[in-house]
Amino acid sequence: MDSDYGVPRELSEVQKKRALYQPELPPCLQGTTVRVEYGDAAIAADAAGAHVISHAFPHTYGQPLAHFLRKTANVPDAKVISEHPTVRVGVVFCGRQSPGGHNVIWGLHEAIKAHNLKSKLIGFLGGTDGLLAQKTLEITDDVLSSYKNQGGYDMLGRTKDQIRTTEQVNGAMASCQALKLDALVIIGGVTSNTDAAQLAETFAEAKCATKVVGVPVTLNGDLKNQFVETTVGFDTICKVNSQLISNVCTDALSAEKYYYFIRLMGRKASHVALECTLQSHPNMVILGEEVAASKLTIFDITKQICDAVQARAEKDKNHGVVLIPEGLVESIPELYALLQEIHGLHGKGVSMENISSQLSPWASALFEFLPPFIRKQLLLHPESDDSAQLSQIETEKLLAQLVETEMNRRLKEGTYKGKKFNAICHFFGYQARGALPSKFDCDYAYVLGHVCYHILAAGLNGYLATVTNLKSPVNKWRCGAAPISSMMTVKRWSRGPAATQIGKPAVHIASVDLKGKAFELLRNNSSSFLMEDIYRNPGPLQFEGPGADSKPISLCVEDQDYMGRIKKLQEYLEKVKGIVKPGCSQDVLKAALSAMSSVTETLAIMTSSSTGQAPSL
Amino acid sequence: MDSDYGVPRELSEVQKKRALYQPELPPCLQGTTVRVEYGDAAIAADAAGAHVISHAFPHTYGQPLAHFLRKTANVPDAKVISEHPTVRVGVVFCGRQSPGGHNVIWGLHEAIKAHNLKSKLIGFLGGTDGLLAQKTLEITDDVLSSYKNQGGYDMLGRTKDQIRTTEQVNGAMASCQALKLDALVIIGGVTSNTDAAQLAETFAEAKCATKVVGVPVTLNGDLKNQFVETTVGFDTICKVNSQLISNVCTDALSAEKYYYFIRLMGRKASHVALECTLQSHPNMVILGEEVAASKLTIFDITKQICDAVQARAEKDKNHGVVLIPEGLVESIPELYALLQEIHGLHGKGVSMENISSQLSPWASALFEFLPPFIRKQLLLHPESDDSAQLSQIETEKLLAQLVETEMNRRLKEGTYKGKKFNAICHFFGYQARGALPSKFDCDYAYVLGHVCYHILAAGLNGYLATVTNLKSPVNKWRCGAAPISSMMTVKRWSRGPAATQIGKPAVHIASVDLKGKAFELLRNNSSSFLMEDIYRNPGPLQFEGPGADSKPISLCVEDQDYMGRIKKLQEYLEKVKGIVKPGCSQDVLKAALSAMSSVTETLAIMTSSSTGQAPSL
Repeated sequence: MDSDYGVPRELSEVQKKRALYQPELPPCLQGTTVRVEYGDAAIAADAAGAHVISHAFPHTYGQPLAHFLRKTANVPDAKVISEHPTVRVGVVFCGRQSPGGHNVIWGLHEAIKAHNLKSKLIGFLGGTDGLLAQKTLEITDDVLSSYKNQGGYDMLGRTKDQIRTTEQVNGAMASCQALKLDALVIIGGVTSNTDAAQLAETFAEAKCATKVVGVPVTLNGDLKNQFVETTVGFDTICKVNSQLISNVCTDALSAEKYYYFIRLMGRKASHVALECTLQSHPNMVILGEEVAASKLTIFDITKQICDAVQARAEKDKNHGVVLIPEGLVESIPELYALLQEIHGLHGKGVSMENISSQLSPWASALFEFLPPFIRKQLLLHPESDDSAQLSQIETEKLLAQLVETEMNRRLKEGTYKGKKFNAICHFFGYQARGALPSKFDCDYAYVLGHVCYHILAAGLNGYLATVTNLKSPVNKWRCGAAPISSMMTVKRWSRGPAATQIGKPAVHIASVDLKGKAFELLRNNSSSFLMEDIYRNPGPLQFEGPGADSKPISLCVEDQDYMGRIKKLQEYLEKVKGIVKPGCSQDVLKAALSAMSSVTETLAIMTSSSTGQAPSL
Repeated sequence: MDSDYGVPRELSEVQKKRALYQPELPPCLQGTTVRVEYGDAAIAADAAGAHVISHAFPHTYGQPLAHFLRKTANVPDAKVISEHPTVRVGVVFCGRQSPGGHNVIWGLHEAIKAHNLKSKLIGFLGGTDGLLAQKTLEITDDVLSSYKNQGGYDMLGRTKDQIRTTEQVNGAMASCQALKLDALVIIGGVTSNTDAAQLAETFAEAKCATKVVGVPVTLNGDLKNQFVETTVGFDTICKVNSQLISNVCTDALSAEKYYYFIRLMGRKASHVALECTLQSHPNMVILGEEVAASKLTIFDITKQICDAVQARAEKDKNHGVVLIPEGLVESIPELYALLQEIHGLHGKGVSMENISSQLSPWASALFEFLPPFIRKQLLLHPESDDSAQLSQIETEKLLAQLVETEMNRRLKEGTYKGKKFNAICHFFGYQARGALPSKFDCDYAYVLGHVCYHILAAGLNGYLATVTNLKSPVNKWRCGAAPISSMMTVKRWSRGPAATQIGKPAVHIASVDLKGKAFELLRNNSSSFLMEDIYRNPGPLQFEGPGADSKPISLCVEDQDYMGRIKKLQEYLEKVKGIVKPGCSQDVLKAALSAMSSVTETLAIMTSSSTGQAPSL
């Protein structure tokens, strides 16, 4: 199996040209000196959970933010690291592949070698399985040559996405010690980075010398918080999917006889669906977050789509495109409850055939109502993170079928007078996951790889590599690191088998912010999207010419420069200090006191009230 | 409904740049003089059917080939047309949309206006429905502006793909007469061009002044013969699909746990599947033509895939990608027979619920063996051309299920020792059909549009616009026209309702040539594709930089310059004439006589033996 890993391979013309693409580095990562400035201790945005988190991560919670600075930056108390001893670094792909993963390894390799040619980067083969079994491949220029700027995780492979049980954690530690690793870099999403934080804590506790560094790589775009603006792979996935969605929109408009129901990969949150909607302008999107907020049932959603079909038919439009995030099924209250019951029975060891007979009367009634294909899919074993097997549950087919039944009823009844409703269903996911990464993802991943080296040079443990100000050009990007534990929240309520996770801190899964600017953009346009067919085709992913440098719309419209704004605030505070010095006038002091007392009071109130389930980031 | 047609719309950055792209014209189409050279009368390659065809098309069969020449070409007997009276031309999209269709209209419009500014191009709205109902839109620069080099057929729309019944043909004639059209241009595939030939014949018979011109536009790539090297849209579809297939290959290799079964749109023939295989190097492709030639049953195919899975598992490979053309189901003998029985019962008016009970015992046994989802799909009404609804029949799921069952059996039995077989199924079709056309398709379609004007300027009726030598750069392309009737064959055997088409000439549907070079390329590589995972990613369709100018591999490897070779032969004959003139030596005459008698004898034998079903083109 491993004989194929890291083997050079035949590349197409486009792949070859991509392999030659050299991403830029922001000024703070250039040269061979690492300059790091520490900020305040980072706290979890989940104020109510902070106590639990600090308890669970005594060695790694409350560490300061780190900012990496350019050589010429005028920051007197920055730490300068110019000695670079030989290091041995391990790197592993965890969880689902996301376009750009290879570039993290490339960037990391380049940074390691630039600082000390004798240092080594060791890749684990076959993901966490390889980590535990110490199956490795030394990363060299030769190995990298046909994987630079290429999609997939096939240079090293990946398997399971867990390092969670005591056995797994100890196995990982044994590997790191046996291989004498100075650092272990974990490339993955929310689950893998939660594991990374746990490893870091355990290693620190056990005085294992290996530092653990996480990198935010997931197509779902749901590892997003004060410190992380977007994840590697999200841009590519949205571009590939948007192209296909737009093609289908054009098809719908040309043939004028089909409704396309398209389900999009992206796990629980609807980020991919939102971004694709802003790119392609399909007629409708059913965001899981809206459904959850409004507690819409499957029947409410069906009615909403039917009403839209009817309204469009009245304008002589008998076609359309509806997007559905794969996580929707878990956002619909009654389906979620049903899934939880099923998973609970799985947990008790009830066999698949017997589950339906052991459901509660209410769940059983819903279950029996559903078409056979979806019943079978709902009965599947849950994933390792206790969520349903979202990629296997064809919610788009369920909705299409319910809508068809209802439209036929309306047609018979005479309330609907349009053409017979015809649906075609699609699931877009696997065909985007292995795509050649966009320029943005190539750049972002490569820079993150370099940041990882800076983190380990600074001797930090339990940090995630961060790059902010991403909507600006690369030379304005700000690089840093934040403790992973400060990105965690604590689950306080849950039903079914997921209840075992109650009270356990985990990296927060960001859902679409219904108060955010990207959603606002959707809301402001949704009625024209619905009725006017203003389909837009961003085109296939381009590597040269127009469109090649575009970034996600949802990234560009959000005011996300949290780290920049924290700095700005510090500047204000310094200014106040500078003005109100002993010797300033009574009036100035009075004004300052009054203003600052009001500010602190307001903030105290706001902070104490944010004890809800999810922090508003 | 029609209010939306031809309306300018918002374009993305990539779309805008594409709208500004100006395809080149080959020298023979430049300037305002049309020079046409006529070749010999074109005959049908289907020698046995020629008599039937000439009978069915007394006015339009046996017309000469036409070649359009550059101004400076030294051909004394070429006809020069420099007068260009005002003309009124109608244009209609027939059948399924194919990327590039809009460019045919753009090229045609430009050629018409370049020769006489007062001439008009009239588009029919909503396909053949608009043609019959005389719903029109005058094509202007304004209308075209946001549709140049764009995908879909949404500038005009399309509906049904038939102009076949006497009522329809008469309706079309009435429209052409009412609108005083000098020519009607029909954009479509095999079915639509068969209809175009019929229209041309009927119009000629009825002395209707409108000339009918066909244009080969279909994503299937199956309108291919001595005169037509490829069709508009085929390149784009293969590029979009290959990208997705390659992404899935990368995904398979990264995760190492899934077999992907991907069905590809493309109707009866397997051209799309073959081209995509040559582009992406997936592990297997089940070409319908191979299955038909070897008379493989569904069980043979299942066994073949299972053996491959087993062989791969022995090399520790538990993943793979299998391509399946949508037409496969009609190439599997027993499934085809079953479909024919079902369609026959449909024809007799038997309702869907009662069909299964009226099947012959043999067909019924097969039917009952099949899983319920596929039974339902097989029972669907046939298409207008009497073929099954290929896009709705999930052959990939059927095969995946049969393979899974067999692998589980082998696992239990102990003959298979690999991991549990896991399949994920895809159908790639609709998501490619509306794509932005590739540069090649943009160029080809635009040039064909210009050729249409040359055909109508020459006053030809019942011709298809042709461009040959396509693998060379645009300035070497040869433009011409061939009578559609010479591309026809006559069905001599058929069962089921398709039997009504026996004896009716129709444009020949080209299947993959198992003696051709493209297939040879596949055959020579198929064992390394199968075992070595030499996946290749042509990348997303590019409009600039590497890959932007690539053409289909299957086009480039075939020796297709039929028209060029006909010319070459004529040169040889002229040379013989030139040498063997009265006065030449006895020996020369004797040698010439002996050689020519042998040549003519050989050819006579070859021609008389080609009385099989399909001509070998």
